[in-house]
Amino acid sequence: MTIAEQVATIAKNARQASIALARLSTTVKNEMLLKMAEALEAGSATLIADNAKDLAAGKEKGLSDAMLDRLMLDTKRIKGMADALREVAGLPDPVGEVTKMSKRPNGIMVGKMRIPLGVIGIVYESRPNVTADAAALCLKSGNAVVLRGGSEAIHSNRAIAAILQGVMKELNIPEAALSLIPFTEREGVLEMLKQEELIDLIIPRGGESLIRFVVENSRIPVIKHYKGVCHLFVDATADFEMATRIIINAKTQRPGVCNALETLLIHKDVAAAFIPAFAKTLGDLQVELRGDEEFRKYAPQAKVATEEDWAAEYLELILACKVVDDMDAAIDHINQYGSLHSEVIVTSNYANAQRFIREVNSSCVLVNASTRFNDGGQLGLGAEIGISTTKLHSFGPMGLEDLTTTKFIVYGDGQVRS
Amino acid sequence: MTIAEQVATIAKNARQASIALARLSTTVKNEMLLKMAEALEAGSATLIADNAKDLAAGKEKGLSDAMLDRLMLDTKRIKGMADALREVAGLPDPVGEVTKMSKRPNGIMVGKMRIPLGVIGIVYESRPNVTADAAALCLKSGNAVVLRGGSEAIHSNRAIAAILQGVMKELNIPEAALSLIPFTEREGVLEMLKQEELIDLIIPRGGESLIRFVVENSRIPVIKHYKGVCHLFVDATADFEMATRIIINAKTQRPGVCNALETLLIHKDVAAAFIPAFAKTLGDLQVELRGDEEFRKYAPQAKVATEEDWAAEYLELILACKVVDDMDAAIDHINQYGSLHSEVIVTSNYANAQRFIREVNSSCVLVNASTRFNDGGQLGLGAEIGISTTKLHSFGPMGLEDLTTTKFIVYGDGQVRS
Repeated sequence: MTIAEQVATIAKNARQASIALARLSTTVKNEMLLKMAEALEAGSATLIADNAKDLAAGKEKGLSDAMLDRLMLDTKRIKGMADALREVAGLPDPVGEVTKMSKRPNGIMVGKMRIPLGVIGIVYESRPNVTADAAALCLKSGNAVVLRGGSEAIHSNRAIAAILQGVMKELNIPEAALSLIPFTEREGVLEMLKQEELIDLIIPRGGESLIRFVVENSRIPVIKHYKGVCHLFVDATADFEMATRIIINAKTQRPGVCNALETLLIHKDVAAAFIPAFAKTLGDLQVELRGDEEFRKYAPQAKVATEEDWAAEYLELILACKVVDDMDAAIDHINQYGSLHSEVIVTSNYANAQRFIREVNSSCVLVNASTRFNDGGQLGLGAEIGISTTKLHSFGPMGLEDLTTTKFIVYGDGQVRS
Repeated sequence: MTIAEQVATIAKNARQASIALARLSTTVKNEMLLKMAEALEAGSATLIADNAKDLAAGKEKGLSDAMLDRLMLDTKRIKGMADALREVAGLPDPVGEVTKMSKRPNGIMVGKMRIPLGVIGIVYESRPNVTADAAALCLKSGNAVVLRGGSEAIHSNRAIAAILQGVMKELNIPEAALSLIPFTEREGVLEMLKQEELIDLIIPRGGESLIRFVVENSRIPVIKHYKGVCHLFVDATADFEMATRIIINAKTQRPGVCNALETLLIHKDVAAAFIPAFAKTLGDLQVELRGDEEFRKYAPQAKVATEEDWAAEYLELILACKVVDDMDAAIDHINQYGSLHSEVIVTSNYANAQRFIREVNSSCVLVNASTRFNDGGQLGLGAEIGISTTKLHSFGPMGLEDLTTTKFIVYGDGQVRS
């Protein structure tokens, strides 16, 4: 078979299996996930041996130490994978929930029932734990999943998938509901992205170039986010100590992630009182500040911010800082340069807090809290499959419910339309 | 300016206006819609004069009488448009609703707030009332709208848009929030479908070829449906009188629409008892039946159904009929040939009703009621902007809520992530 034929067969089998998956009871799905967790731990030795092949190939290819570390599996990481499956088993099952049931004037009862999407395709890079994590979330929400991992992790991914499929076989659940594209030619991804009749949604997980590649080549809807240019606005009534604490957390706790803070906006009425001490504190923490002219009046040690800085996702210890006339100017700046990710106001003014929440339409809008809370776990979704900064279907961190849709259900007793 | 530049400018202005639109209160939006209704009625003479230009051009181009009729505006149809705006004014405003507000362990309050999508593009064909209907739904849900109607209706569409924009101007609402692409070159649509940074969603309204053209050329997400191959399953315990009544309604009340019935599946245990009288009744109503071998045993007057009949959306008085072994076979048939639109079971068996509702994942699944109820008005959504048979974002008839999304909102008092 050609690669195109193999991928089409995998997708067709996954579609067929998705019908059975959608019908599984929560009890059976949870039993499957718990047994998968056990099986991963029991299979540690095999997994580590297969992972060693990837590590050896990676060294030969000259992968960086950081990439080799992301690729590496040891008993601790395998336990982490297993625990993640147990966590998903513990989450509520969104499938079958009925909402908005009501009686229409003609007596039919109309409601909406939550159902799986069908088949979800995941395209990801080097971390092999995604194989187990993403599969668990798709299966728990009643979907079949087609996984296509990076070539660096192919042996590890195959080994993980084989262990999980072994459990499915044991429980008489069609193994095709968890399919891994078993080869790493780029043509495999391209063929996968063409199966719009068989795959309902593609979620790319990885760097911006992977995501752009998927978006440009997919005929299937893609849920994605490119970057996070997150803002914090220090309002005229902000508590300075609180503002500084939140900025430090948002900027320095984990600077390399998408919900880290990138741009600070300061109300002009507090610029003189806030900036000097703040700039010193951040300087002591090795954060490089880049300010506009007004900001640098009070912090001359800051570098000069240019137009590019307002659009920058630094992902390192750099913070762009600007003094604004008022909240309107802050919101205009966010509308112009933001990426719809996470925006914070620090304020003690009730009306401004409410207005900021209403008028800033990013995926997460926060009052007096760190941008770092824009995360599925922190917001209470349980494990997350990804984050969306496009507004269709899902906006923000995506949990189990985001892997489902709703159908209309109608209970009648013979009604016809007049 | 080139066409590309003009379209880009329209989209950019609509994006800018969408910020103001998202902030309008329900009161102002309703006032706008009610005034628009008045203005349409007051402007009847102008509308009819401009419509006459389209009718004359249409006659010259040799449009069919049916197409000319769809294009035609008279005082009655203008009143219908105005009443549709009044109906939208009366619908609840989905924007601002907060759901799932709860306190996380660290004390932050997390919820989801419903917000407009932003800018919605509508690509449609000859009926000019879509200009007013679609605009009203987009504006009521806080979105800006970019309309691109068919060339046959260009004078009518421009006249309607001008009247509606006049009301917006009077109320100090940015007119760019209701933009009409004012020329009819195909390049205009193609350019519109490229504005993925400025337009959030495209909804095509029209025939299958229009929809396919939009899907193939759009970089913006498209919500669509191609066709409705709707099924009705007569279970072994069906009330024959009820089944026949529902089939007649679903097949004959309006055969040309997507929620009309196309395929009938009959449980073998009742084939002998049900088919002969049923076939006679439908024959008397001029419905052509096409049956499989088993069906034709009891209705030899039926034509022979071929493989193509199972996938056909006839949109006329033809019904494909098949005898199946049991409900599993019926569901398998629906999974194989269905279009995820509307499926009915007629039964008096409780367990079968519940199983059919659970296991058939079409956009609307009904027990003992006509497929014709799969319609926004009938299901209680109020006016509908379209219907989706793809599962992402919306599945089934789409009302105001489907033109919105949700963002996460967080109220903290200084929390940072540890």
